[in-house]
Amino acid sequence: MQSTDTRLNRNSLQLALRRYSTVVHNMEQTVLLPSLLRDVPYDEAQDCEAADNSMDLYESYLMLKAIKNTVESGLFPMHDDAKTKSHAALHKGLEPLLEAEPEALFHFHLRGLFTVMAALANKSQNLTEKYLDIIGVRH
Amino acid sequence: MQSTDTRLNRNSLQLALRRYSTVVHNMEQTVLLPSLLRDVPYDEAQDCEAADNSMDLYESYLMLKAIKNTVESGLFPMHDDAKTKSHAALHKGLEPLLEAEPEALFHFHLRGLFTVMAALANKSQNLTEKYLDIIGVRH
Repeated sequence: MQSTDTRLNRNSLQLALRRYSTVVHNMEQTVLLPSLLRDVPYDEAQDCEAADNSMDLYESYLMLKAIKNTVESGLFPMHDDAKTKSHAALHKGLEPLLEAEPEALFHFHLRGLFTVMAALANKSQNLTEKYLDIIGVRH
Repeated sequence: MQSTDTRLNRNSLQLALRRYSTVVHNMEQTVLLPSLLRDVPYDEAQDCEAADNSMDLYESYLMLKAIKNTVESGLFPMHDDAKTKSHAALHKGLEPLLEAEPEALFHFHLRGLFTVMAALANKSQNLTEKYLDIIGVRH
């Protein structure tokens, strides 16, 4: 059991999902006037995800809330074409995955979901701090 | 709310994970002599996943049990090199994903995990039926 414990880095999808919910809940409690976030771009120095530059903070706020609803309900739409600007790229990437073994696919998606939940939780925290900056509350 | 309900196809990751656990639990209760599965290949007509042909039923049985442990504990190793024959292909596929928006990535991995859990649950059911065939119990 010892060696198994050492190999596991205590990565838990459930914990990552719960942490995400908590962080977004805190964001919702803090951001009382979401409209103040309109047309405010992401500070690139704070957030390395260059592909996200097209979204302003208000859009990010709505996106983070929508993902929290999906996480908490556990339900998701099978075809959400409206939100799939990047899906062409994703599906191109899918081809080698479909040929992979199911075990490898399971670990790939489990780890992927864990990583993206952590990234989105950080995004929500950055947004909350940015809001506090905007309304002049130093932290 | 009506239109949201219509868009959701009642896909729930939690339900898919729970169903997987139940199906593998049933397999474990049924397969009392797993060694009978050694060197038995998958029936290709029953299982379309051609990439899996290299695994015999015994290896599949162990793999399905290991994934159940990961699902139930929620913990997973960050680097499981031993099991990653297909990871080179997976990582090649990752490149366009890393440039995608986090929202798209979230939906991609959520849907991917849901789909692979359903496929693995079916695999476990097929294996259980095959075991019953081997020991001569018709169903």
